[in-house]
Amino acid sequence: MSIEALRERMAELSDLTALGRLAAWDQRTMMPPAGGPGRGEQMATLERLAHERATADEVGEWLDGLEAARLEGLDGEIVRIARRDFDRARRVPAELAAEIERAASEGQHVWQAARAAEDFAAFAPALRRNVELAREYAACFEDAARPYDALLADYDFGLTAERLQGVFGELAEELAPLVAGAPEAPPPIGAPVAAQRAAVPAVLARIGAAEDGWRIDDSAHPFSVGIGRSDSRVTTRYVEGDLLSVIAAMHEFGHALYERQIAPELSRTNLGGGTSMSVHESQSKLWENHVGRHPALAPVLAEAFAEGGFAVEPSELHASLVAVRPSLIRVSADPVSYPLHIVLRFELELALIEGGLEVADLPAAWNDGTRRLLGIDVPDDASGVLQDTHWAAAAFGYFPSYALGCLIGAQLWEALERDLGPQDEALGRADVAGIRDWLAEHVHAHGRRLDTEPLVERATGRGMEAAPFLRHARSLVGAP
Amino acid sequence: MSIEALRERMAELSDLTALGRLAAWDQRTMMPPAGGPGRGEQMATLERLAHERATADEVGEWLDGLEAARLEGLDGEIVRIARRDFDRARRVPAELAAEIERAASEGQHVWQAARAAEDFAAFAPALRRNVELAREYAACFEDAARPYDALLADYDFGLTAERLQGVFGELAEELAPLVAGAPEAPPPIGAPVAAQRAAVPAVLARIGAAEDGWRIDDSAHPFSVGIGRSDSRVTTRYVEGDLLSVIAAMHEFGHALYERQIAPELSRTNLGGGTSMSVHESQSKLWENHVGRHPALAPVLAEAFAEGGFAVEPSELHASLVAVRPSLIRVSADPVSYPLHIVLRFELELALIEGGLEVADLPAAWNDGTRRLLGIDVPDDASGVLQDTHWAAAAFGYFPSYALGCLIGAQLWEALERDLGPQDEALGRADVAGIRDWLAEHVHAHGRRLDTEPLVERATGRGMEAAPFLRHARSLVGAP
Repeated sequence: MSIEALRERMAELSDLTALGRLAAWDQRTMMPPAGGPGRGEQMATLERLAHERATADEVGEWLDGLEAARLEGLDGEIVRIARRDFDRARRVPAELAAEIERAASEGQHVWQAARAAEDFAAFAPALRRNVELAREYAACFEDAARPYDALLADYDFGLTAERLQGVFGELAEELAPLVAGAPEAPPPIGAPVAAQRAAVPAVLARIGAAEDGWRIDDSAHPFSVGIGRSDSRVTTRYVEGDLLSVIAAMHEFGHALYERQIAPELSRTNLGGGTSMSVHESQSKLWENHVGRHPALAPVLAEAFAEGGFAVEPSELHASLVAVRPSLIRVSADPVSYPLHIVLRFELELALIEGGLEVADLPAAWNDGTRRLLGIDVPDDASGVLQDTHWAAAAFGYFPSYALGCLIGAQLWEALERDLGPQDEALGRADVAGIRDWLAEHVHAHGRRLDTEPLVERATGRGMEAAPFLRHARSLVGAP
Repeated sequence: MSIEALRERMAELSDLTALGRLAAWDQRTMMPPAGGPGRGEQMATLERLAHERATADEVGEWLDGLEAARLEGLDGEIVRIARRDFDRARRVPAELAAEIERAASEGQHVWQAARAAEDFAAFAPALRRNVELAREYAACFEDAARPYDALLADYDFGLTAERLQGVFGELAEELAPLVAGAPEAPPPIGAPVAAQRAAVPAVLARIGAAEDGWRIDDSAHPFSVGIGRSDSRVTTRYVEGDLLSVIAAMHEFGHALYERQIAPELSRTNLGGGTSMSVHESQSKLWENHVGRHPALAPVLAEAFAEGGFAVEPSELHASLVAVRPSLIRVSADPVSYPLHIVLRFELELALIEGGLEVADLPAAWNDGTRRLLGIDVPDDASGVLQDTHWAAAAFGYFPSYALGCLIGAQLWEALERDLGPQDEALGRADVAGIRDWLAEHVHAHGRRLDTEPLVERATGRGMEAAPFLRHARSLVGAP
């Protein structure tokens, strides 16, 4: 049995994924609006074809033969991960997968209207249907200890609800009082859009996004794609009188750098992507929180704004970027209180899926949790339980990665500074070569060879934990 | 036997084609340069997969069953064209197709170096190989009366070398003396790039390229793609002190409009594209020559330039756009002498393929033909036989469409003005709704239902002929 057929199929799937990313990037940045329906069909065709090719009978036959051959090294890893992906994909009946997709698409339509009308009751039936289908989906994976674990595995293979309850429990217990006791935030600083438009490419160029292999565009929500390892595209969003376009661009830079620095020999194999949503998010959060919001980088950012015609004191800029301002909306939360938004969502979706919470009781539970964790009252469901699209899109198990990204990012940053020493002086010169190289070696190069926990352990010497993020948060709020 | 399976496969192939066009558009307009090698792999994968799906055994089985069922109407047409495409694709052995692709790719590399070095001898072996392989390819189609006909059929199904010899013979006989006797051209007029950048979108907006469904971008060579029928993208090229960016954009608009106005029920079927290269080129040439260079449109163009800060008299603008300036290089030829460049290439490639001309004798034949047809001496091979990439890329049979586009464009324009009356007054208001609708009804709506000659006959009441273009050319040079 030769590995070649499997490798060719994996290369094909990798190319189809790249084309799908291109189609999605184009849709969100370049496509004339009237192209929407056609693009939907093109992307559905691509996805269907990729799924067919990934789950075809011959792939199962190749895997049987290759497992018997007990390959070592990279080929062995390719077979191991291919088997995992193949089995997971085949375990879900096609009709159920299609029904989930239909309900999720319908759910998003209904949710948009319900959010606009501030009417949770209008959304409840669609959400109930998504929850039911998610349970059916979870039931396809008999080896999962709990239903939620089966959902989580699509985003973060190997993590469990129990593990998250432990880590998030520790996090919430310390973080909620920290947020409540944070000093009052200074008034926000805002730059004109023109200055932000000058600053974003200037800052990204200084940290390594050379024109030869990168693009920076606008989109309604910032995102990043790697279309092959040498074609990285980030977007950001410019709001008048804001600063966050630069921070959002650095966040997306972190995602893109991960995909670029995966070991070249993993290119066009099934190992050539980020290993999990949480590790991916740890890379964006590291560049956002630990580099972008580092006090030593503030003069570099201020200089970039100044070249765009906006003068700001580095110390004021930094104070504005790290100020704690507990608020209702997750996507605009400050870097300290942000994970509490996720803890709330995790608790609620776990209870929805595993049966402890009825959909009808969700708004009340949301509002209680917001008061408990963030200390604020929710005035209406639009700025409460209806604010995010994830449940409407049936993406249960996705939210945790946002908080895990904060935790793992902080844990990696501590390990990096332990290995390399404090980065203050280098960051003052916008010299991030050491950071990039450390991340390449300890995180990026592995691709999908290591799952989240083994990767964190190998990179930091410890299991995933909340303590490093909490130390970082305490330093930001000036707590002991 | 149900048509559904065939229709689904055709829809899939149409979606894959759209994705391939997106990938090519992106490569030429947006992609960071370092993305090149990855993009090459992605596009090769897409093409291989599309070919596999188009020529799979089950398609042949479906066609056998459906032909026996003798479907009528649109379904019958879908089966007829699917059979033609399937048989043509299956008649070429995979090894030969791969070898042609390899040799063509190699040919383009060798050609680039040979052109830079002005050294035809360095290119000759690669060209000889391409000619040999083209003959082998032609031999796969036993039903073609002549080898050249088999090559032509890939671009213009149903046309023959004999037919082209007749039409091009008539064209050359009258056009060469017309060009030789044309009045001296006025000095060229050139606008600054900034004025051209303002004029291009302004003019396209006035003739119907609304932002909702169109994009206009820059590229090294102007081109157009339709990524689905509601997403049209044209590019143009801005040269300081030139005017042609606007004319090139109108040319590409003509191509794009064709794809947009195909009957909606042909969308995502195998009939939902332009029927041939020559009819496609007739649409670009009609918008370029008969609309863009129309004297009545000159004030509209002058106004668009004026808004961009460049003042020009409409009469001078028009005189510059239609001046005859016989020259060595095809891509910058004036609209009257242009087809003579193609007649030369057609004569030579026909002789190469069918054995009347040795590759070694090609430069001398080129230079003789340039003197005979255009009245000018070729100083070196770089501005002579080495100027185009087509033979290096093994695209034998492609050149004729450029001249046929001029002829068919002129023939359609005469028929259009016969049906609608002279367009001078409407063009003075940039009102092209009548032109767009006439083209939709007589040309575009049919998609691939009619091949080139039947389409021309139905639209104009006559077979394809040189006379309308010659009348147009005579009017431009002021000949009787």
